[in-house]
Amino acid sequence: MINIIDGGVTAPKGFKASGVACGLKNNQKKDLAVVCSDDLAVASGVFTKNVVKGHSLQLTMEHIKSGYAQALVINSGNANACLGEQGYKDAEEMASLAAQLLNCNSKNVLVGSTGVIGMPLDLSKVRSGIKSAISSLSEEGGHDAAEAIMTTDIVSKEIAVEFEIQGEKVRIGAMAKGSGMIHPNMATMIGVVTTDINISKKLLDKALKDVINHSFNRVSVDGDTSVCDMVVILANGKANNEGIVKEDIEYSTFKSALEYVCTYLSKMIAKDGEGATKLIEVVAEGAKNNEDAYKIVSAIAKSPLVKTAIFGEDANWGRIITAAGYSGADFDPNLVDIYIGELMVCRNGTGLDFDEEKAKEILKEAEVKIKINLKAGTSSDRIWTCDFSYDYVKINGSYRS
Amino acid sequence: MINIIDGGVTAPKGFKASGVACGLKNNQKKDLAVVCSDDLAVASGVFTKNVVKGHSLQLTMEHIKSGYAQALVINSGNANACLGEQGYKDAEEMASLAAQLLNCNSKNVLVGSTGVIGMPLDLSKVRSGIKSAISSLSEEGGHDAAEAIMTTDIVSKEIAVEFEIQGEKVRIGAMAKGSGMIHPNMATMIGVVTTDINISKKLLDKALKDVINHSFNRVSVDGDTSVCDMVVILANGKANNEGIVKEDIEYSTFKSALEYVCTYLSKMIAKDGEGATKLIEVVAEGAKNNEDAYKIVSAIAKSPLVKTAIFGEDANWGRIITAAGYSGADFDPNLVDIYIGELMVCRNGTGLDFDEEKAKEILKEAEVKIKINLKAGTSSDRIWTCDFSYDYVKINGSYRS
Repeated sequence: MINIIDGGVTAPKGFKASGVACGLKNNQKKDLAVVCSDDLAVASGVFTKNVVKGHSLQLTMEHIKSGYAQALVINSGNANACLGEQGYKDAEEMASLAAQLLNCNSKNVLVGSTGVIGMPLDLSKVRSGIKSAISSLSEEGGHDAAEAIMTTDIVSKEIAVEFEIQGEKVRIGAMAKGSGMIHPNMATMIGVVTTDINISKKLLDKALKDVINHSFNRVSVDGDTSVCDMVVILANGKANNEGIVKEDIEYSTFKSALEYVCTYLSKMIAKDGEGATKLIEVVAEGAKNNEDAYKIVSAIAKSPLVKTAIFGEDANWGRIITAAGYSGADFDPNLVDIYIGELMVCRNGTGLDFDEEKAKEILKEAEVKIKINLKAGTSSDRIWTCDFSYDYVKINGSYRS
Repeated sequence: MINIIDGGVTAPKGFKASGVACGLKNNQKKDLAVVCSDDLAVASGVFTKNVVKGHSLQLTMEHIKSGYAQALVINSGNANACLGEQGYKDAEEMASLAAQLLNCNSKNVLVGSTGVIGMPLDLSKVRSGIKSAISSLSEEGGHDAAEAIMTTDIVSKEIAVEFEIQGEKVRIGAMAKGSGMIHPNMATMIGVVTTDINISKKLLDKALKDVINHSFNRVSVDGDTSVCDMVVILANGKANNEGIVKEDIEYSTFKSALEYVCTYLSKMIAKDGEGATKLIEVVAEGAKNNEDAYKIVSAIAKSPLVKTAIFGEDANWGRIITAAGYSGADFDPNLVDIYIGELMVCRNGTGLDFDEEKAKEILKEAEVKIKINLKAGTSSDRIWTCDFSYDYVKINGSYRS
């Protein structure tokens, strides 16, 4: 039984957070977040697979190797990427300043940055931001933190759930930001998950990696993967459950709750994709194997032609079968069925004389499901994406200005 | 010495063509083209690698196996794809009707279709179109044919050149259509090349395949590859040169001329990409091997974020290095140099404090060159693409209506 509760990263016991504006964004919006646990927490993370990696992310990859962390500092408005040695030094200074103020080891501070690439961080702003954020840390600060990590996101993204483990109430809280430059396979954005469960490092790591493959790694906004994207989880054990040390039923309960949280945020990210007017779920069934199923959903979700057709509410399924055809998956086009919502539009690779009005109605909804059945095997996959609108072009034609 | 001459597919000796409107397009524009040689010509083709293949294309792949063809019938407005057995039968009827009227073997007639997928061909319109086109075949009909194969193309695309082979004047003429659903590696559109050279089947085939890999297979509009795309060449020997039967200097001259023609049309296609306001040439240098060089230019040319930034005339090179980073190519990001036009904006993976005004001026041009040097080896590649504008979304949001 998983209950949704109020709040985000500060909903679990023993976590505080804050979000402040320190001038990295031009518009006086919040741009620096701090999340911290009262005590050292076990920690795990998943990071971008891009060959190019932001400096803050690189530092976090180093620090998280210990398996422990206590705090996280994230700035928006600047990616701290492609800046040579200075970028890494700046990330180190962010961590050490926060550590000093929080009275912890700087190795236990994780750092994240998101925004424009290749522009040096204004460290005096960052320093004042960290000071001000740490002085305003509170158990109600989760929402401010969620706002402070937004870039082109329109809505802030957070969720918290409560469930029972080993007779104790346990909570997971989380926040995430999108909303462009998003495509698997990598952590596809910045996501921060907190929990007060008592769990071993090894199982926390396993749960996160398993869950991410079906949630954050199944979101595509534009096929681009950023150099700064990561998902980290901190578990501080404050719920006082006995401790999860093996893959038993209690572990499964935790994993289900984590999956619920990550899936919720993944769909929010797709829905809030840059310029998006619709959330699209692409499902592939009957693939020969898992790799093929993934290739199919990924190619369809990435196709600008599919995405503009759905924006235009045009049931142009020819573009769906076309994308499947060049995905690299192995299948017989003469067996393919395609559905838009519940409406079958193509059977055995041949177009049906379907009701265009009904298709239009389905495509007018805020959430659209596309399903393709290859009848080549038993593997399936699904991915969330959004449509491609005028606003995507507008947002991305002038992002730096 | 290659001289550009007037005309397109009917510039070489012994070719006639025509283009008529038979009602497949709603707007009364030309939608059916016929190109034919006075006598049987040696022929070669390159076809889409999409698993899904249009029925007309499938028939052409069958017919061209003989290595000979005399005529080509192409309709626009309907892709004749994903229609089951009927689609293939319709393609056969197109070929046999044309053969009957031209008094040749239907196996020597090639067929092409381009337009909407999954909508049955109105064969009565196609029949009347073929009759009318064949009755109006002429040596001046190349331009009408080039118009009749257009879909969302804004300009018709044709070129002809003349050069000397074995003491005789020889000509190559060509036409092509774009302009969406275009990405290598496949034949990336419909292209028809005619020549009056006398050349062996084997060498014609070799020249076409070699040249296409550096021309038509280096154009990307939106990363999608269609189910109907092909390039075919017919050589009828009417120039009366002795005959090219080995890879000598005369063969090289022919191949250079063919490359000139195909490159010209490829750039025209990229420039006329749906909604395009700019032609973009992406060059990768210093790659470890050819595969990596191709992965880099392909990822950059496909990135909606790069393409929207260039539409917005924003020198957001971070998106260029990001795309390179997720391309799958192996390189050290700390060695990468990036140029926008001649302006270096990133050296050794680190952003430079470049002149933004100068960058803006470069990006305001109708043709923009982006260069990335990986310093990982000696391989290079280049691709042509276009920017991503509001109009791309507009054109593709309502293509079928």
